[in-house]
Amino acid sequence: MPSKSYFYGFKVPLHDVDAAGVMFFGHLFRHAHDAYEAFMAANDLPLEQIIQEDEWLLPLVRAESEFRAPLRHGESIRIRLCVADLGRSSFTLLYRFEDETGQIRADARTVHVNVDAARGSSAALPKRLATVLETYVCDPRSSDPGR
Amino acid sequence: MPSKSYFYGFKVPLHDVDAAGVMFFGHLFRHAHDAYEAFMAANDLPLEQIIQEDEWLLPLVRAESEFRAPLRHGESIRIRLCVADLGRSSFTLLYRFEDETGQIRADARTVHVNVDAARGSSAALPKRLATVLETYVCDPRSSDPGR
Amino acid sequence: MPSKSYFYGFKVPLHDVDAAGVMFFGHLFRHAHDAYEAFMAANDLPLEQIIQEDEWLLPLVRAESEFRAPLRHGESIRIRLCVADLGRSSFTLLYRFEDETGQIRADARTVHVNVDAARGSSAALPKRLATVLETYVCDPRSSDPGR
Amino acid sequence: MPSKSYFYGFKVPLHDVDAAGVMFFGHLFRHAHDAYEAFMAANDLPLEQIIQEDEWLLPLVRAESEFRAPLRHGESIRIRLCVADLGRSSFTLLYRFEDETGQIRADARTVHVNVDAARGSSAALPKRLATVLETYVCDPRSSDPGR
Repeated sequence: MPSKSYFYGFKVPLHDVDAAGVMFFGHLFRHAHDAYEAFMAANDLPLEQIIQEDEWLLPLVRAESEFRAPLRHGESIRIRLCVADLGRSSFTLLYRFEDETGQIRADARTVHVNVDAARGSSAALPKRLATVLETYVCDPRSSDPGR
Repeated sequence: MPSKSYFYGFKVPLHDVDAAGVMFFGHLFRHAHDAYEAFMAANDLPLEQIIQEDEWLLPLVRAESEFRAPLRHGESIRIRLCVADLGRSSFTLLYRFEDETGQIRADARTVHVNVDAARGSSAALPKRLATVLETYVCDPRSSDPGR
Repeated sequence: MPSKSYFYGFKVPLHDVDAAGVMFFGHLFRHAHDAYEAFMAANDLPLEQIIQEDEWLLPLVRAESEFRAPLRHGESIRIRLCVADLGRSSFTLLYRFEDETGQIRADARTVHVNVDAARGSSAALPKRLATVLETYVCDPRSSDPGR
Repeated sequence: MPSKSYFYGFKVPLHDVDAAGVMFFGHLFRHAHDAYEAFMAANDLPLEQIIQEDEWLLPLVRAESEFRAPLRHGESIRIRLCVADLGRSSFTLLYRFEDETGQIRADARTVHVNVDAARGSSAALPKRLATVLETYVCDPRSSDPGR
């Protein structure tokens, strides 16, 4: 299956590093979400518009991360974002944090479920969203999940 | 003038300390605002209710802080909150950050203006709020602004 | 197995709520870590001392969270912290976020590994730490994991 | 006086917006500091290097901000950074937050003092730093402080 990844870069800022001298793990999720917002906007699905128009709800039901090596102040990090799982009403995003040498420093995943606001139950992903997500489906077990 | 302060305590958490080994200055404002929320709730004016009922708007128009000595991981800090200035439609809160020896580590101030949501212009502070604030008016130039 | 939990309370502050009107999921991990710091301090193992003395390193290797119901501004939340898994060189903390009615709103878990700073490899947990953790071992599958 | 500004852009992310529907004011200082880090790196003075080499200390002694209009989710903001004041041992940075129409939404200022780490007293700014800062001196009272 042909697949591609979305790339998002950032430099570890002073305030993300904690008293132990490494990036506080909770901030990894903030950067992951920033990558998600940029990914959605790049695919004509800006979150601010989705929220304002109240068309869909895509609550996060699960988030997880594995930390392989600590991130330090000033490091340039690239997040490789792809779709690790795509279901009828839910999807899982994979965020691979890579340093400038290509080494994987951390992996994060978020699971989102589409909820029908009126009925409060899960609902099929909107077609417009599913079409975008299909393009980014990757194999999370691969060392090179999407290119 | 008889006056009193509101006290709010916290311990500097791991994630507030930055790559330079001291509390990142921006987090001081977060703690100041937490003290403000606790102060309002303690005086029967919980912010979540004010926002939900959309009765008033109290936007912050100015914030400032002076840092005397860096705050370090694990330090127990007490914020002394009082009203440094009380006008017809606006007020200034003073947040004095003191350590366990009583030494002042930082001073922060926030200026809030009451805005009439319908007309978009400044409006007299609601009576219920003004009555509370009057009780906490202090002299910010004093070394012991309120007790 | 007799076991107990450590309890840590907080009120959802204004700045934790995001543009979608609910607590941003990344902040859950900040509160979980605040509970961890308070738990360690309450058991005579303050993190700031462990870090300064550079005696042990307890890096987080994994963090995860499931969100059952969104947290909203002003809600009083109690974190029930217990030890979901205790190994020779690692342990898993469970953080159960409960509201005032006792309903579980979210579960978070962090996995910590003790690292020998000199050799860079995992090492048995310090006895002083293991003794504390044993007291708080709980059954994470139980609806009432520790009391 | 010829002068120039440094420009730094960002889009208001979901997690910066608070329960009142606008960017939490404390986050403005985080973005200001990110602009400062980018400015220093662009001028061959990366903060991570300065901190690691422990050559100078540039503690913040004061920070302030005026908020003219709230920032909302998804807005593209440009920070115009210039040097509002340059002394022998201290300097003041001005951060002007402008939206896409060029409207000023907020102004922030940070005051930094060079401290001699050994003696603990203020010291003349390092020549390398002073030379860079001179290039960016602006007139903060001007509506167009630096170009």
